[in-house]
Amino acid sequence: MALEVFHKDKTLQMRRKLIGQSCRLFFSHDPVKIMRARGQYLYDENGMQYLDCISNVQHVGHCHPSITQAAAAQMDLLNTNTRFLHDNIVLYANRLAASLPKKLSVFYFVNSGSEANDLALRLARQYTQHQDVIVIDHAYHGHVTSLIDISPYKFRKLEGQKEWVHVAPLPDTYQGIYREDHPDPGQAYADTVKSLIEEAHKKGRKISSFFAESLPSVGGQIIFPAGYCKRVAEYVHEAGGVYVADEIQTGFGRVGSHFWAFQLQGDDFCPDIVTMGKPMGNGHPVACVATTEEIAGAFTANGVEYFNTFGGNPVSCAIGLAVLDVIEKEDLRGNAVRVGGHLKQLLLQLQTKHPLIGDVRGVGLFIGMELVKDRASRKPATEEAAHVVRRLKEERIVISTDGPWDSVIKFKPPMCFSIEDAERVSTCIDQILGELEDIHQNRTPDGVEV
Amino acid sequence: MALEVFHKDKTLQMRRKLIGQSCRLFFSHDPVKIMRARGQYLYDENGMQYLDCISNVQHVGHCHPSITQAAAAQMDLLNTNTRFLHDNIVLYANRLAASLPKKLSVFYFVNSGSEANDLALRLARQYTQHQDVIVIDHAYHGHVTSLIDISPYKFRKLEGQKEWVHVAPLPDTYQGIYREDHPDPGQAYADTVKSLIEEAHKKGRKISSFFAESLPSVGGQIIFPAGYCKRVAEYVHEAGGVYVADEIQTGFGRVGSHFWAFQLQGDDFCPDIVTMGKPMGNGHPVACVATTEEIAGAFTANGVEYFNTFGGNPVSCAIGLAVLDVIEKEDLRGNAVRVGGHLKQLLLQLQTKHPLIGDVRGVGLFIGMELVKDRASRKPATEEAAHVVRRLKEERIVISTDGPWDSVIKFKPPMCFSIEDAERVSTCIDQILGELEDIHQNRTPDGVEV
Repeated sequence: MALEVFHKDKTLQMRRKLIGQSCRLFFSHDPVKIMRARGQYLYDENGMQYLDCISNVQHVGHCHPSITQAAAAQMDLLNTNTRFLHDNIVLYANRLAASLPKKLSVFYFVNSGSEANDLALRLARQYTQHQDVIVIDHAYHGHVTSLIDISPYKFRKLEGQKEWVHVAPLPDTYQGIYREDHPDPGQAYADTVKSLIEEAHKKGRKISSFFAESLPSVGGQIIFPAGYCKRVAEYVHEAGGVYVADEIQTGFGRVGSHFWAFQLQGDDFCPDIVTMGKPMGNGHPVACVATTEEIAGAFTANGVEYFNTFGGNPVSCAIGLAVLDVIEKEDLRGNAVRVGGHLKQLLLQLQTKHPLIGDVRGVGLFIGMELVKDRASRKPATEEAAHVVRRLKEERIVISTDGPWDSVIKFKPPMCFSIEDAERVSTCIDQILGELEDIHQNRTPDGVEV
Repeated sequence: MALEVFHKDKTLQMRRKLIGQSCRLFFSHDPVKIMRARGQYLYDENGMQYLDCISNVQHVGHCHPSITQAAAAQMDLLNTNTRFLHDNIVLYANRLAASLPKKLSVFYFVNSGSEANDLALRLARQYTQHQDVIVIDHAYHGHVTSLIDISPYKFRKLEGQKEWVHVAPLPDTYQGIYREDHPDPGQAYADTVKSLIEEAHKKGRKISSFFAESLPSVGGQIIFPAGYCKRVAEYVHEAGGVYVADEIQTGFGRVGSHFWAFQLQGDDFCPDIVTMGKPMGNGHPVACVATTEEIAGAFTANGVEYFNTFGGNPVSCAIGLAVLDVIEKEDLRGNAVRVGGHLKQLLLQLQTKHPLIGDVRGVGLFIGMELVKDRASRKPATEEAAHVVRRLKEERIVISTDGPWDSVIKFKPPMCFSIEDAERVSTCIDQILGELEDIHQNRTPDGVEV
């Protein structure tokens, strides 16, 4: 057990004084102090264990010894910048290339998803010589200035929408404008992008790119309807723009069946740029942009160097390679299929019992459970979702909500999450929803929410 | 000796294919493949040693065992995000606070200098509710979109100057508009900023911030004239803006006498925001923004979370703390004073002998030696500077040039650089400049450059 330097109250007091308060804590009314972690388990200052359902960054499990060893060995040997030749960066790029369609063959290594998406924007603009960007409503693509501008989740609360940003409806077949009863929601949602392009063109604007998470996460763990991405890519290409697949949350096998979530849309869809980040270094700051020779060539042709001080250094690449090795050796994609599939089944069973569960959706270990006040209106059950999160914390399970109304309980655990973990969290949710329904019934004897 | 995976030619071939060519190599005609490093020494694939005069990132020396140990120990224990309470982040912020003036008491941890400067821009704009930025000519503040916009070094080669950006002359008393013979160049250069503010105001624009590296590095290892920063800060404050000191290259004791380079301007000058990065993690991606309670408070008051996935994680902070410990334990600031002072003396001695050396300037281990065609015209000796770099490489010394004409030989070595290293590089430069002068004399028998 690691030694605690300060009592929790003192840590919290220092944190409030020294760290910008825009950096928020989980469970801010009673934050958790975590001292150590292993696999899918977190341990607080009293040695209390928490089951971690949210740490998608610690992809192969917290503090995996193979990753620590790879990092320490390379740190002891060399950690310099990419202006010197080194094998690790080419080894790593080569491994990533093997996971992607052939045309995505050029790589830029950076330090964060935000740096990756910003570079993707620079690449798209340089290649197309167009400025405008289409994004999906409620999307979040990063914290730097340019990405706040293309993140409706942020800019709606801040400076508002820039004239060069166009917002397409979230292709959510549960709460969106086209739902599961639509004959072809993929086409219908893609047509909303087509309309946006036409409107932009009428104003004399030109589309550089369409940015989308391959599975919108902040948007509420959304699974795109079939055919959506391919049709959008066609429309965007016709407009002279490129398709940017943001795989920062969803890549590296989280969906189980495929290495990249965009591959769920079929072999006949391929983005022009893919950005990756969070799980890539299991917590180490490393991220990447993959693109085509043509787009990279246009960026080179401007004659200006792109230098990223830490990006692609030998240690980051050694860690990235070790993460890929563990994903393969421990068959974590297979685990995501098995455990994610089982968890989804358990939640679907709960749905038959608990009217609060409006929708259960997901692939692999990327799952959302949307709570509603009642199934007819699909009115988001925001408070109930917050209650579930608070109660699960009491049961020592760490989970969070997302979606436009914070009504989606979000599962994105480390990929070593087990069948037993899935059953534990499902059992607890069953009990908590039962408690909630009891409270509702007591309040409204006829069982109808008022 | 580490094993080479690919022969150097193969590494180079893979690199050209797989990595965006905008990411350039040192000595691109014959790049160096580095396999390992220790202290101030790099070793190539044949075990050949190079003296490193440029790796300011590997601040306490390449692969310092204390840093590796601190990183590995924390990686084995916990590496999660800042939404959980942890002691390392508050310990580290507290240590940084102790190095800064009292009013700079709130910290945001990020992954790179670019993320830090972008956040500084967001903070400045939120606090002042103004948009415009004043920057110094030839400055470089980072690679993300917003920072390309405020980096004349980049935007002049790309999309040009935005209407909200105002460029002040580089306060270079050797090549600039006011020189060493001016009675008060600090005041004169500060007045150029005052004029810019007045022009901006006439156009109805409002200044959010003045951004400046505390010692402009890409600008050519410039030392601000006395009084410059204080007067600029006064003018910027009068306009309702804030002063952002970019200490990404210059912080953490590089100047020896002070921990931060802005402190060279005296105790009566204090920036409103300080950004830090490169040397902070000795190669690990970590960076930071320090600011006042008022500015941080305004950013919090917008109600929007700032979440940086990797920023401020327990591993980054453990590494940061270990770097601070090594700076103190090994008296690296003292070493910068002693060795930097000695190196500067040696270069000044060379200046008495070699007419090519127009100027020698610097503090601590931040030194520039500017080459000129002749001392009267001060015409930059760009080709000669490139020749010195190439020849030093043959002598197995890695160094680079910078400045508006790439005519400044730039010293920013790891802080463990020794007296012997300084003498070795000085001796080599002496010889190479002698060779160059012989060539010049042979070409022009009267010894005058034509």
